Amino acid sequence: MTTAEYTAWTQPNDANALGTLFGGKLMQWVDLAAALAASRHARAPVVTASVDYMTFLRPVHIGQLVLLKSTVNRVFKTSMEVGVKVWVEDMRTGETAHVSSAYLTFVAIDVAGKRVALPQAVPETDIEKRRWEHAGERREYRLQLRQRALDREKG
Amino acid sequence: MTTAEYTAWTQPNDANALGTLFGGKLMQWVDLAAALAASRHARAPVVTASVDYMTFLRPVHIGQLVLLKSTVNRVFKTSMEVGVKVWVEDMRTGETAHVSSAYLTFVAIDVAGKRVALPQAVPETDIEKRRWEHAGERREYRLQLRQRALDREKG
Amino acid sequence: MTTAEYTAWTQPNDANALGTLFGGKLMQWVDLAAALAASRHARAPVVTASVDYMTFLRPVHIGQLVLLKSTVNRVFKTSMEVGVKVWVEDMRTGETAHVSSAYLTFVAIDVAGKRVALPQAVPETDIEKRRWEHAGERREYRLQLRQRALDREKG
Amino acid sequence: MTTAEYTAWTQPNDANALGTLFGGKLMQWVDLAAALAASRHARAPVVTASVDYMTFLRPVHIGQLVLLKSTVNRVFKTSMEVGVKVWVEDMRTGETAHVSSAYLTFVAIDVAGKRVALPQAVPETDIEKRRWEHAGERREYRLQLRQRALDREKG
Amino acid sequence: MTTAEYTAWTQPNDANALGTLFGGKLMQWVDLAAALAASRHARAPVVTASVDYMTFLRPVHIGQLVLLKSTVNRVFKTSMEVGVKVWVEDMRTGETAHVSSAYLTFVAIDVAGKRVALPQAVPETDIEKRRWEHAGERREYRLQLRQRALDREKG
Amino acid sequence: MTTAEYTAWTQPNDANALGTLFGGKLMQWVDLAAALAASRHARAPVVTASVDYMTFLRPVHIGQLVLLKSTVNRVFKTSMEVGVKVWVEDMRTGETAHVSSAYLTFVAIDVAGKRVALPQAVPETDIEKRRWEHAGERREYRLQLRQRALDREKG
Repeated sequence: MTTAEYTAWTQPNDANALGTLFGGKLMQWVDLAAALAASRHARAPVVTASVDYMTFLRPVHIGQLVLLKSTVNRVFKTSMEVGVKVWVEDMRTGETAHVSSAYLTFVAIDVAGKRVALPQAVPETDIEKRRWEHAGERREYRLQLRQRALDREKG
Repeated sequence: MTTAEYTAWTQPNDANALGTLFGGKLMQWVDLAAALAASRHARAPVVTASVDYMTFLRPVHIGQLVLLKSTVNRVFKTSMEVGVKVWVEDMRTGETAHVSSAYLTFVAIDVAGKRVALPQAVPETDIEKRRWEHAGERREYRLQLRQRALDREKG
Repeated sequence: MTTAEYTAWTQPNDANALGTLFGGKLMQWVDLAAALAASRHARAPVVTASVDYMTFLRPVHIGQLVLLKSTVNRVFKTSMEVGVKVWVEDMRTGETAHVSSAYLTFVAIDVAGKRVALPQAVPETDIEKRRWEHAGERREYRLQLRQRALDREKG
Repeated sequence: MTTAEYTAWTQPNDANALGTLFGGKLMQWVDLAAALAASRHARAPVVTASVDYMTFLRPVHIGQLVLLKSTVNRVFKTSMEVGVKVWVEDMRTGETAHVSSAYLTFVAIDVAGKRVALPQAVPETDIEKRRWEHAGERREYRLQLRQRALDREKG
Repeated sequence: MTTAEYTAWTQPNDANALGTLFGGKLMQWVDLAAALAASRHARAPVVTASVDYMTFLRPVHIGQLVLLKSTVNRVFKTSMEVGVKVWVEDMRTGETAHVSSAYLTFVAIDVAGKRVALPQAVPETDIEKRRWEHAGERREYRLQLRQRALDREKG
Repeated sequence: MTTAEYTAWTQPNDANALGTLFGGKLMQWVDLAAALAASRHARAPVVTASVDYMTFLRPVHIGQLVLLKSTVNRVFKTSMEVGVKVWVEDMRTGETAHVSSAYLTFVAIDVAGKRVALPQAVPETDIEKRRWEHAGERREYRLQLRQRALDREKG
């Protein structure tokens, strides 16, 4: 499955009122890292269709290095789920910690702005197969949630 | 329920390779707009705990004005769900369009970095009651998804 | 009369050596908020012709939310005066304070870069009528000042 | 009289919808150039008290070099008027053009945030004397305008 | 020998008048990538002492991904040479190209701002040994150049 | 010989972990100041071909003003060496200090991306003649260094 890595060194202006990294800044980097893997898979311009879930496990301190690894977990017909795992490295001690995980859905677009069919990808290793399966479960949940919202609107 | 409004005028540097707004940039503004409502409710520093869902309905063109409205939908013990609805206004025609919806969870933090109990909020209008109820459903779904992930890890 | 609102959350990098908001940063936001109202009135690209007056009443602290309200006060033939009033909200206490007022003149431009005639606007409420009248006085003063400068250059 | 020079090379992100320099960006540079002269005169932290007038004579094109020259025109007791003249240089042809003039008022501030008395400055050359005199006229006009506003509010 | 990787996705605002990446922007990223490797080696704050050589082999186009790999080539007593090699990846085709190489010298600093002795590093692989040797040659050349400049100044 | 001046006021976001100016930020300004002189000489778009040497003599503190003076030292056939000298001015005391010197090579480019022949320049003053001569020495050294690297690769 296609992967990408992205690195960002947090700077003073990325700090919120608590002196830690703004959630919105990390979201921007997560989107970028995910778009890189999606672009490499599609070799076409991609756009974010949804952020399906993103969790912030602990604060990131300014001066820490943010390391993002993204993987295309599963390709549906015209969309793909990308998973992103985020670590920080403390530059003084070298210690690393897992600070965030995220799942996003991307689509690829042609010049007319229409979704294009994506090259398929078959999971091979055990971990790829597990991610592929769970991406399906997450999608099923999202569709249920959307259906319930639609039912509510109708009646 | 506490609300906030935020406005951002898209500029050339916010464009992706397709000449439309970067998904990650909109995420950053959505986080900011949500944090404003959460801060106003808690009157304490807040941090993003999770992005529960964010959908991108159509591309935003550079030069369009982005209007974000955020509402605290429901307060749990030490966390709160904030909903954000995003419109664009085309400055030439005045037409507006709904481009994104998002749900995020925030927590408030004391000086020691610990979560603090939040002031409760009782929904009053019909729309507030509906949002309050659905925030509960979304939370229940997330807990189920997390439980399933835990079960899988165990065996 | 056409209005607009703009919001900006001050960040560490907006600070001057005193740790308060740079005057130039607030000017940029005031210009943006004024341009929004002017664009909505003209529904054409607008450019700033002059800043007629802008006063800074008290320092803005980093972390405070800046709220800008702009109104087209009066439309002349190819120019319009826009007034901007600026408040801050302290996110910890919820207190707001008036920090700045400004008057700017905008013109609308066609593709050839020429000024275009503007849609007229008739003030209706008392406050609109007062603003309309004072916009005229401010313009008269500016013309006197310019005439005096021209007279000086001639002789 | 104390002077300063500032230079800024316009970049793609400084462009408005017309592809020319945003008025608000030029305001920010004018404030910076004026603050430099004011700081050099006071050798203390300074803050902008007002923009008294700023005119935009012609559009600045992206890629042009912006040259700003600022001068302390006159020192009052705890405030000083700074004049800024702005040119652009077209990097392809070497041609320069005058694009903006501005007058701003600055005050110097001590650690407690109080205005401090400023070192006086006596104009010496003819042009310095003329600027000194006109700074007085501009101040007199502003005080008249303010008085009229106060009278209006009273009755 | 300590290494680091850094990634940057070029954006519209990074473009010069030719629509390609500003040299100065690439320098900034090279400094960052080099500082990462130097920080990891010293596990202390580091500052750039000199850019010894940096070459730009071909233009970088906006939208291309910039990949930087840095290595501590040799540790002297209180300084270290870091080499940086820069590739771009074209996101449409997946093709990569070598666009720049650079050598920089870094020092580590204690709280009083004084240079600290660095942990030594012994090259092990053939390529590490070659880099170590050439870092010495480059340093010898720089010292000769400096001596010649000093001799010239004396007489 | 063609010259240029550039000025940058250091801001909080330009700070590294030590609270002083990032080396990479100063590199960016040095490249910009050098490109200005090179552009003025060529009156054509220019790109950086190499940074031949840049030294950082002392840390720059946030709030200090950075003053850069660049000079075209010597024009070769299709390349030119530009020297940049960098000072800081402490805004509180008015004291200045020399913080960096740099030599860069630029080329001018036509619409097809090909190097163009440059207008020649003859040094006139003593200091210009000295710079012209030393630019030649620096070039000779670089060519030797490159030859040695080539010889090594061959055998």
